[in-house]
Amino acid sequence: MAQPHTAEFQARIGKFQTALAARQLGGAILLHPTDIFYFSGTRQNGALFIPASGGAVLLIRKSLERARSESAAQVRPFPPSKELAAAIGPAKRIGLAYDVTPAQQLEWYQRNLTGRTFSDVSMAIREQRSAKSPYELGLMRAGAEKICAVFAEVPRFLRPGMRELDLAAEMEFRLRKAGNEGSPPMRSFNQKLFVGVCVAGDSGAAPGYFDGPVVGRGLSAAAPQGASTRAVEPGAPVILDYTSVFDGYVIDMTRTFVCGELPAELARAFEAAIAIQDEIGRGLRPGVVPVDLYDRAVQMAEQAGLGERFMGPPGEQARFVGHGVGLELDELPVLAPGFKTPLVAGQTLAIEPKFVFPGLGAVGIENTWAVSESGGERLTKLADALVRV
Amino acid sequence: MAQPHTAEFQARIGKFQTALAARQLGGAILLHPTDIFYFSGTRQNGALFIPASGGAVLLIRKSLERARSESAAQVRPFPPSKELAAAIGPAKRIGLAYDVTPAQQLEWYQRNLTGRTFSDVSMAIREQRSAKSPYELGLMRAGAEKICAVFAEVPRFLRPGMRELDLAAEMEFRLRKAGNEGSPPMRSFNQKLFVGVCVAGDSGAAPGYFDGPVVGRGLSAAAPQGASTRAVEPGAPVILDYTSVFDGYVIDMTRTFVCGELPAELARAFEAAIAIQDEIGRGLRPGVVPVDLYDRAVQMAEQAGLGERFMGPPGEQARFVGHGVGLELDELPVLAPGFKTPLVAGQTLAIEPKFVFPGLGAVGIENTWAVSESGGERLTKLADALVRV
Repeated sequence: MAQPHTAEFQARIGKFQTALAARQLGGAILLHPTDIFYFSGTRQNGALFIPASGGAVLLIRKSLERARSESAAQVRPFPPSKELAAAIGPAKRIGLAYDVTPAQQLEWYQRNLTGRTFSDVSMAIREQRSAKSPYELGLMRAGAEKICAVFAEVPRFLRPGMRELDLAAEMEFRLRKAGNEGSPPMRSFNQKLFVGVCVAGDSGAAPGYFDGPVVGRGLSAAAPQGASTRAVEPGAPVILDYTSVFDGYVIDMTRTFVCGELPAELARAFEAAIAIQDEIGRGLRPGVVPVDLYDRAVQMAEQAGLGERFMGPPGEQARFVGHGVGLELDELPVLAPGFKTPLVAGQTLAIEPKFVFPGLGAVGIENTWAVSESGGERLTKLADALVRV
Repeated sequence: MAQPHTAEFQARIGKFQTALAARQLGGAILLHPTDIFYFSGTRQNGALFIPASGGAVLLIRKSLERARSESAAQVRPFPPSKELAAAIGPAKRIGLAYDVTPAQQLEWYQRNLTGRTFSDVSMAIREQRSAKSPYELGLMRAGAEKICAVFAEVPRFLRPGMRELDLAAEMEFRLRKAGNEGSPPMRSFNQKLFVGVCVAGDSGAAPGYFDGPVVGRGLSAAAPQGASTRAVEPGAPVILDYTSVFDGYVIDMTRTFVCGELPAELARAFEAAIAIQDEIGRGLRPGVVPVDLYDRAVQMAEQAGLGERFMGPPGEQARFVGHGVGLELDELPVLAPGFKTPLVAGQTLAIEPKFVFPGLGAVGIENTWAVSESGGERLTKLADALVRV
């Protein structure tokens, strides 16, 4: 893997220290492995203390050897609990990411750092991580090329009669051989995804807990998401919504396929999804307000007479049209109601307009983009067109 | 999937209510999807309230439709926050699983249920879930047969010169086509596993954050676990430590392979691992104390002159020889120092004695067992022997 320069991590920590100072915090203790990786270059198990000023220290439980070989930060063994206060220093007000820190962990730090106060610093972390550096954008461009190459192979193995599960297995096999590191990390409580969602026909309209427009039936009540054992029927839309993780960075994309010909109603909806995507893509400029892009997408769906099909089955429509991606699948910003903080250059988002027809299935498109002055830079360059096999 | 009888869930909830009453709790709010699934039959997103007496209620955010089709519990839409107190009822002392509940969630419930006190009920959940019912054991036996069938195919595709990653991809492809539902859920903070660990030669001695004897190099600092792109060399031990998830239940097993012949030192260590496994397996009886089995394993390793090779590379040796499995990969009991609560019938454990030789690699064995009156019932019945290809 390309190793980033120490200056990259110094810049990340410096920016975060500005946010800590603005919140009158003396420092932050980061425990979530994705956050530790972002600020230190390693995801070994431990705690990264970033003071509001001065050098960060990474306290490692396991593996000290690997953390030292990977991290730009100062690495020390995790101290006995009685020595933790001394290792952290004098900071009185300490931030933790309350969105990903279990109550047990918070209580442990409160017990072992008496006389300090703790507060939630998760939004500062999430906001900083949403805007990628040139180094990060380089990794995401390279990752996007790799997942596009796998999607380009689908016509070689998609056949009518195969099970959704067989198609999923073929996708996951090729992604893995291309170096896919595993499941995309998710930050939201109780959300998870294995690698992607592979659905055919009516499975595209199955309801489910996952916060996306197309969930899938899955294989059991324990795993109610993604591919089922149902067969791909001729004329039924096939949605492949897959992620990849290369050097830690997630790319998210969807293409629609069909064995034979789509019903005209679905073909028309697919074209509407492309038109919405292209409109939103042009709007991915610094200063643009996320909710305005969401409203524009909804307006276009309604103008196409497809408002009730937009982003999910009836009663379970997802209320967004795009979401940040990076080290996690569910980053800021979200193109959704309530998101009013203007976009900034370098933010990366998956834009995924989709339409769901109960009884028939789902169609749509998804690409990963970067916000830039001239409109969205598209990272996943594979052609959008409906693929007929 | 086989649907368990309502009586199964009534028994689970009844047992937990006894534990709540013993702790003087008026009820518990469960948020962790695996816990919700265990007690209700669905893992849709929401909160399951179990009062110390009376019926449980499942408050669902998404998907109400799917939760109602799967759950034996009373299912209602998640109420507006102002109506939460009425939905929960009068319980004053409420348990939550602090090990898996983010601080943000705990604070939200504290804010919206004023006048109540909250405490950690995670050990009661974990202890109950560790002993499986006959229904659960039936699912685990069926899952074990499926993963054994995949392991039996390894000689068809393991070849010298292939990358660890290629071998991993072949395993994962076959597991997926057999119906593997995804990554094994893990409860411990900051631990995760994609599907398994595939290592050859010295990769078996790589250090890493994962709490296991064999971690692997992985593909980058962001994913420092499992297969790397190094090639399988003739004469190097190959460890395949893989999990499966069928109907939600995890099975965990390991076999050791070699292209050609193992060095004599490693072949001898492999036999020592089998001897330790067989001894521990015989000891999986109700009333036996977990730490005593761990101590016996360490004693046998030392008597074989392999104490310094046992369960990890020098300085990073894991201090256990077996761990509970079930709906999660890391359940109770653990055969490790400090675990003194005697075993009970129906507990299911992965027993995994392994030896690690820096510069050469790792060898060992792992099977999933159930505690029974006549000693461990072995669920993964595939032959243990070293496989030469």
